[in-house]
Amino acid sequence: MKIKAGIVGGAGYTGGEMLRILVNHASVEIKFVHSNSNAGNLISDVHTDLFGDTDLRFTDMLSDDIDVLFLCVGHGDAKKFLEANKIAEGIKIIDLSQDFRLAANAGNKWVYGLPELNRDKVKQASYIANPGCFATCIQLGLLPLAAKGLLKSEVHINATTGSTGAGQGLSTTSHFSWRNNNLSVYKAFGHQHLNEIGESLSMLNPDFDQTISFIPQRGDFARGILAAMYFESDLTAVEAQDIYENYYAEHPYTHISNKNIDLKQVVNTNKALVHVEKHGNKLFVVSIIDNLLKGASGQAVQNMNLMFGLEETEGLRLKAVAF
Amino acid sequence: MKIKAGIVGGAGYTGGEMLRILVNHASVEIKFVHSNSNAGNLISDVHTDLFGDTDLRFTDMLSDDIDVLFLCVGHGDAKKFLEANKIAEGIKIIDLSQDFRLAANAGNKWVYGLPELNRDKVKQASYIANPGCFATCIQLGLLPLAAKGLLKSEVHINATTGSTGAGQGLSTTSHFSWRNNNLSVYKAFGHQHLNEIGESLSMLNPDFDQTISFIPQRGDFARGILAAMYFESDLTAVEAQDIYENYYAEHPYTHISNKNIDLKQVVNTNKALVHVEKHGNKLFVVSIIDNLLKGASGQAVQNMNLMFGLEETEGLRLKAVAF
Amino acid sequence: MKIKAGIVGGAGYTGGEMLRILVNHASVEIKFVHSNSNAGNLISDVHTDLFGDTDLRFTDMLSDDIDVLFLCVGHGDAKKFLEANKIAEGIKIIDLSQDFRLAANAGNKWVYGLPELNRDKVKQASYIANPGCFATCIQLGLLPLAAKGLLKSEVHINATTGSTGAGQGLSTTSHFSWRNNNLSVYKAFGHQHLNEIGESLSMLNPDFDQTISFIPQRGDFARGILAAMYFESDLTAVEAQDIYENYYAEHPYTHISNKNIDLKQVVNTNKALVHVEKHGNKLFVVSIIDNLLKGASGQAVQNMNLMFGLEETEGLRLKAVAF
Amino acid sequence: MKIKAGIVGGAGYTGGEMLRILVNHASVEIKFVHSNSNAGNLISDVHTDLFGDTDLRFTDMLSDDIDVLFLCVGHGDAKKFLEANKIAEGIKIIDLSQDFRLAANAGNKWVYGLPELNRDKVKQASYIANPGCFATCIQLGLLPLAAKGLLKSEVHINATTGSTGAGQGLSTTSHFSWRNNNLSVYKAFGHQHLNEIGESLSMLNPDFDQTISFIPQRGDFARGILAAMYFESDLTAVEAQDIYENYYAEHPYTHISNKNIDLKQVVNTNKALVHVEKHGNKLFVVSIIDNLLKGASGQAVQNMNLMFGLEETEGLRLKAVAF
Repeated sequence: MKIKAGIVGGAGYTGGEMLRILVNHASVEIKFVHSNSNAGNLISDVHTDLFGDTDLRFTDMLSDDIDVLFLCVGHGDAKKFLEANKIAEGIKIIDLSQDFRLAANAGNKWVYGLPELNRDKVKQASYIANPGCFATCIQLGLLPLAAKGLLKSEVHINATTGSTGAGQGLSTTSHFSWRNNNLSVYKAFGHQHLNEIGESLSMLNPDFDQTISFIPQRGDFARGILAAMYFESDLTAVEAQDIYENYYAEHPYTHISNKNIDLKQVVNTNKALVHVEKHGNKLFVVSIIDNLLKGASGQAVQNMNLMFGLEETEGLRLKAVAF
Repeated sequence: MKIKAGIVGGAGYTGGEMLRILVNHASVEIKFVHSNSNAGNLISDVHTDLFGDTDLRFTDMLSDDIDVLFLCVGHGDAKKFLEANKIAEGIKIIDLSQDFRLAANAGNKWVYGLPELNRDKVKQASYIANPGCFATCIQLGLLPLAAKGLLKSEVHINATTGSTGAGQGLSTTSHFSWRNNNLSVYKAFGHQHLNEIGESLSMLNPDFDQTISFIPQRGDFARGILAAMYFESDLTAVEAQDIYENYYAEHPYTHISNKNIDLKQVVNTNKALVHVEKHGNKLFVVSIIDNLLKGASGQAVQNMNLMFGLEETEGLRLKAVAF
Repeated sequence: MKIKAGIVGGAGYTGGEMLRILVNHASVEIKFVHSNSNAGNLISDVHTDLFGDTDLRFTDMLSDDIDVLFLCVGHGDAKKFLEANKIAEGIKIIDLSQDFRLAANAGNKWVYGLPELNRDKVKQASYIANPGCFATCIQLGLLPLAAKGLLKSEVHINATTGSTGAGQGLSTTSHFSWRNNNLSVYKAFGHQHLNEIGESLSMLNPDFDQTISFIPQRGDFARGILAAMYFESDLTAVEAQDIYENYYAEHPYTHISNKNIDLKQVVNTNKALVHVEKHGNKLFVVSIIDNLLKGASGQAVQNMNLMFGLEETEGLRLKAVAF
Repeated sequence: MKIKAGIVGGAGYTGGEMLRILVNHASVEIKFVHSNSNAGNLISDVHTDLFGDTDLRFTDMLSDDIDVLFLCVGHGDAKKFLEANKIAEGIKIIDLSQDFRLAANAGNKWVYGLPELNRDKVKQASYIANPGCFATCIQLGLLPLAAKGLLKSEVHINATTGSTGAGQGLSTTSHFSWRNNNLSVYKAFGHQHLNEIGESLSMLNPDFDQTISFIPQRGDFARGILAAMYFESDLTAVEAQDIYENYYAEHPYTHISNKNIDLKQVVNTNKALVHVEKHGNKLFVVSIIDNLLKGASGQAVQNMNLMFGLEETEGLRLKAVAF
């Protein structure tokens, strides 16, 4: 008996990734893929790499004959969608927007769907607010220390994202002629993901009251985020490595590498790799994910697996692109 | 009962792709990964994207306790390896080099492993010579007509390959500073794959005696081949489209698109897409594959599936990188 | 006494390149840079690499106090502009659009501004129709033979262009996430530049009545065109090389390389490189240019130099980007 | 009367850039280009973009008939070269290696050739130690404050370099298949350029005793460095902007942009752009250069211009690649 899934916002980047995963997920049946703009069109007309894999078409009709609904719409639109459309009791919802991530918006209803932070809660949840891509990458580099109350000083973060992080909208900074071979900073110290990062760290490490200084950068690649972070710490390199390894020991998609890491180790996979070094009195942490997978649709499926009692990795054993 | 597989030359690009596929192939158990240069090292030290996926190590020992042996060594080295090492009767061999592709080298023993040409023979074969990457891409664009004896005039081909086609050896033309944003021609009219293409076409279309003019190009991307081909034809666009669709109707990895295609539709998948247009008296065919998958290791696994009576697509439902 | 230049359409790609050249051209003074959409803005707000090089602003006013007017507007808009605005007698005009390239539109007034074809006419001209980028690259690979009447058979051309060839308009195929690491064909056999190529070849080689088969491709780089061409020829390699070298002996920006060439040899320069090989009965020619320079604004300045009796290379000794 | 220049190590990347600049420098005559490995070969056989621009050949002979000698050899090799070869009195030397940058190696003889720091000393100097690429980019973002004694707290720097920063040697991390679409950290907190940065800051700001935390990254582009830096400061945004603008007011190649900047604004130019923002109690500075030009050969020519009393910008008004 397969899980019946609906997707709203199926024509965007995270909707496309959801489809790329679910068409091969042995325990899922896609019941509908909703898109206002593309209703009636073949899914493979929009996500052209799916040509030959699916004959599904977008629809503008919703159905209650589903077990789980993925909301892949823009920030703000998830909330509006749920206000405009009554979703039947019993249907689980996984929202990939930022609309319900913060406690103030989540209330008692929505669980922040970072399995490495909230796995047990996710298993019991009916409504998941799927974390942001930067937020996922950065938190995976900080959670083990926060969980021990060992995050005590300002955290310095520089993280570079691929172009798909900006979605499929056409813009100057996603124009090939501009972005190719380019690099730039944006939203220095002011990225919206700082809020969800802060809430997670405070939950684990309530007396953490230091600044998180975060410089986001636009890289000239399509997929992936690399976050380079450091902060003061009394731990030795070995102690830190142990803490990180223990924290993630039972988590199938976050691994601690004792070698230097590079972005393409995780591109097109649901994995996160974390590398820890000690330099003087500072702990230096590098964390990498694929922004569309562990940073979005992959993590959404990981959450679905947990919510429905499937193996956490089902449908997510993805071949890295590697090159 | 899983198929036991051994890999020789596991540290190279095609060996790495083989591993990326087989670690997730439900019907295969990897028994050994042979590498002279890396014996004792973790596989994930070389193919670093496999960190977290496998704890296997390279070995310099061979074992007979296998059902299939993949030879992922360089051209010329497969033949040498088989001369130097007696492989037990009953072990099937799939060779990814060019050593046994041509009739003169294949004898009665080796079958040219292009499923879209030779599927029935592959199913019966013990020894497979896996096709070249350019050869696969180009043949998939020509086979349907050749099979009808409709290839009658000179064939004009321009095909561009990604850098992984040149393997992992360091060279001037694979140096990032040189290749980034660059484009160049090499081996014009003289690429070695012309021979295997010619043999396949002659087999299907014995009276085809025209020139195949092939200009290979080095593109500034890592994966994929796009071949643009044309030749004179009396067929209408509709007739041609029908012939192509019929030819591939039962082949799960080659699809005829009636829309223009672009390389990334197939990158990181085992798919080939073919698009046909009619211009004046010419039939124009574009064919795309991932050179490391349908052009190498993916096709090798497809052949293995056929040889062992598995579903042809098993282990090969790969998520496209898409971006 | 400097040449006073005006630019119309200064906010686009060819307008920007014109500015990048002219700010350093010792014999030119930029009098105005016209842009309807950007009037009043700093030029360096649009062409941000010019920050620190010029304090000029866009204007929506035209002035007659110029010696030469560059039209850098879109196809069709040059004609409209000239219909709507009377340009004073004595002001020379160089139009980068396709509006006056073909004989039917050029009348007796406009000279096709390919110096390697029409240098003497350019020197006398008041109105120049600057050639298209593909047209320039391809013609430079064919002119020497056409001039000898030695082009006798079908010409097969595959040429790949960078993204700047499509201008600064935002579109799906110029979106970074799509184009990065991608390759595709467009307008096969139907590119509009075939017309201007055909007229030039016919002028030199009046009995040439063969097909020119031209497959344009979109490459994943920003600048440059590489055209790979071949056709039947009785010439030996040495004879062909001689004909090419002699033809371009007095042309400072087109050079015959006896080594294989690659695109980045000419990127960010006004140069064209041409390489000739003989294979069987075919002559194989590779030609490379920077589409925005020799294929547009660089050639426009080269024409201006000729029209005003300056050294042909003035202001155009540009440092290649090389990497 | 032209300045006669010799180049040692002319076959490498900085040697090539030197040649690309000097072939168009109106006041310089290249007397010899020394290369042990390439003696006798055409320069355009190695730096193939110079085909058509120069017929010079590499030589293994040195000559004293020069006014200035550029040493473009590897780190350590400049010192060895000068020990093995007596350079005549009166010949000025500009060394692009790190061998004489630090006070301990420079003695009273070598001047650290950062014009924005040492212009007057450079004008009087006979021997110039040309700064490192990272060191140039980072110092240009910090000098104005250091000169006012206003650098008082830890400096946090993340800087990403293009592949040409690693030279033309073939290596795993400069292999196209690896580096394309990739990003990685290296030498965190331990890059050798920290020493020259520290010496410059201490010279200007003697009581600066804080840590400089520097995370270098390898980007997937060929040219350029972007450094993102921050530190605590009491200055307002306007005060800081003023200090920066005043400091560089008379320096032709460093400009303060009050808009966000991106790497390609400076690629293929000798320019540095610096952008300053205030966030909370932190001053945030972004600095960009072309690592081979302002970060190496361009700056070397700028130093030469100063040493010989030429206009500082001569030969360096380079057209940006822009795309």
